[in-house]
Amino acid sequence: MLSPTFYLQNAPVYLGALSDFFYDWLGQNSFSQIFILTDENTRRHCLPVFFAQTGLETRAIVHEIPSGEAEKNLATCEKIWSAMAAAGLDRQALVVNLGGGVIGDMGGFCAAVWKRGLNFIQVPTTLLAMTDAAIGGKTGVDFQGGKNLLGVFRQPAAVFVDPVFLHSLPEREWRSGFAEILKHAVIAGQSFETMEMADMTALLHRSIAVKVRIVEEDPTERGLRMLLNFGHTIGHAVESYFLATPASLTHGEAVAIGMICESHLAGLPAADTLASFIMRHFLPCPMPESAFPAIWQWMKQDKKNTSDTVRMAVPDVLPYSLKIMEPTRAQVENSLRFYNRLA
Amino acid sequence: MLSPTFYLQNAPVYLGALSDFFYDWLGQNSFSQIFILTDENTRRHCLPVFFAQTGLETRAIVHEIPSGEAEKNLATCEKIWSAMAAAGLDRQALVVNLGGGVIGDMGGFCAAVWKRGLNFIQVPTTLLAMTDAAIGGKTGVDFQGGKNLLGVFRQPAAVFVDPVFLHSLPEREWRSGFAEILKHAVIAGQSFETMEMADMTALLHRSIAVKVRIVEEDPTERGLRMLLNFGHTIGHAVESYFLATPASLTHGEAVAIGMICESHLAGLPAADTLASFIMRHFLPCPMPESAFPAIWQWMKQDKKNTSDTVRMAVPDVLPYSLKIMEPTRAQVENSLRFYNRLA
Repeated sequence: MLSPTFYLQNAPVYLGALSDFFYDWLGQNSFSQIFILTDENTRRHCLPVFFAQTGLETRAIVHEIPSGEAEKNLATCEKIWSAMAAAGLDRQALVVNLGGGVIGDMGGFCAAVWKRGLNFIQVPTTLLAMTDAAIGGKTGVDFQGGKNLLGVFRQPAAVFVDPVFLHSLPEREWRSGFAEILKHAVIAGQSFETMEMADMTALLHRSIAVKVRIVEEDPTERGLRMLLNFGHTIGHAVESYFLATPASLTHGEAVAIGMICESHLAGLPAADTLASFIMRHFLPCPMPESAFPAIWQWMKQDKKNTSDTVRMAVPDVLPYSLKIMEPTRAQVENSLRFYNRLA
Repeated sequence: MLSPTFYLQNAPVYLGALSDFFYDWLGQNSFSQIFILTDENTRRHCLPVFFAQTGLETRAIVHEIPSGEAEKNLATCEKIWSAMAAAGLDRQALVVNLGGGVIGDMGGFCAAVWKRGLNFIQVPTTLLAMTDAAIGGKTGVDFQGGKNLLGVFRQPAAVFVDPVFLHSLPEREWRSGFAEILKHAVIAGQSFETMEMADMTALLHRSIAVKVRIVEEDPTERGLRMLLNFGHTIGHAVESYFLATPASLTHGEAVAIGMICESHLAGLPAADTLASFIMRHFLPCPMPESAFPAIWQWMKQDKKNTSDTVRMAVPDVLPYSLKIMEPTRAQVENSLRFYNRLA
């Protein structure tokens, strides 16, 4: 059988066609039940592919939740747990999270907490989830508007990254994932200006390798892993702000804005190159000055912060090194204005 | 400074006066905030003692929830998490669970899940929690009537077992804890007929040692730890049944009934001695035959079970050994009738 492409804290990560890996992996385990979490999009576009490649159609219990970040909360978890109870899911069951970051984070959390922990696998179907959310053992849901305030660290039993699912991905979701790939390149000190999507497997391989290296060194985010928050301190706040408005912004789009603001604020050498590269690949999304107080409030809510300051991790001069900044409100607002001028 | 009485998966367990240990332990850590979870009983009877022994009164945030097993659910967790959000609790905060099993299990769960894991300490205030719930790293809450269906395994940062809190304990709570102490004696093959409460610290030491030994060997309950469920397979179901009736039964009272039924069903050599010892120390609580179907259903819901059978772990001939049984409904009902005849 084929070996895993990576190991992350002993959890295998398989990159390539599901059917090349899945049967052997499943044969090494004995699960009592298979519970698949989907949303309406992945049920329609990805589940038939998953079944065709795994042969699980006859024995799987499929649970569907509505798609979208707004569903990533405790109320949806309760529905999932109710379905687990109705299915009589026991400790030997396997949960399959077939979807993007919301499905992976929330399904991982629901599995990690049900009966004190079921095995689960991540089968990411978006570029964003393939390179980021599905890798690294973070699970969680939002709470009272705060992102991922409830969750646990728990490695999945395996991650299966199969680019086949990207065929059904809307253009905008591609861009969203591209932001995280770009982030990984920047923090690893790799050149990004010539990056293109032609060889998706190679691009994913390079990007996942960065994530695996960082998480392996610091699984619970005491140090180096904070570097993965590059673009997210401001980006998450921007995302939370837009979640409460009619305009919608993908996670990656918010992170792209965050990377521009944070690298400008931190004075990174690559700041201007990065900003112009991002503006060529992402739609502009200026924010009114009236939004700035709310964005600052969201930043202060960030779970990385100690009580009264805003902490922000950005790349330092060397690859795989970080510096922690505690920007003032004025600095953050200046960086938002810098972005607005580009947008 | 005084050494911990036990270590359990590197977490110190201190048995004795809080003030002997707490200052030094706290001094070894640097917590940003102290969040104390209490119920109305422990706030009144135990919090003043805790403050007097730890000097934390001026810096602690106290959150009170209503007492009782019926509160051990997600709705209460949401209130606790709201309080954590309102207090701006960050990852360097410490959660103190000051109370019985409900406070410890639920507070442990809320802490383990908040921002993917805060440090928490268990300060058990009931005999039951001192010998059982606070030791071993199980956290959880009930879900849709099923006991502890949601939770994680997570060791506390420390456990402080101070018998001083037992002074305020009602007679009935004493008995409830006594059932678990009895269980530990039985599974360790210790004599129990001469057990008495005179030297509480010695009794706790012996009992906690049994729990620590078992959990250390099998923290996530794949094998030996199942032995701690002795009395609980039937006992939990009996407890769940009574939770939905006007009659109330403590956890220990239910476990005492469960131990009588299970040891009779399994034909343990000590079965009759154990039954008569329990009937001398616990009030009789006969169950109508009409309750048997519901009790069987609760047993089938137990999270230890694979889909269609009821699994029950009981002591085997040697100390620290177990056998797994899969009793039929008829066997369980016969054992309940056996208990009813004694009651």
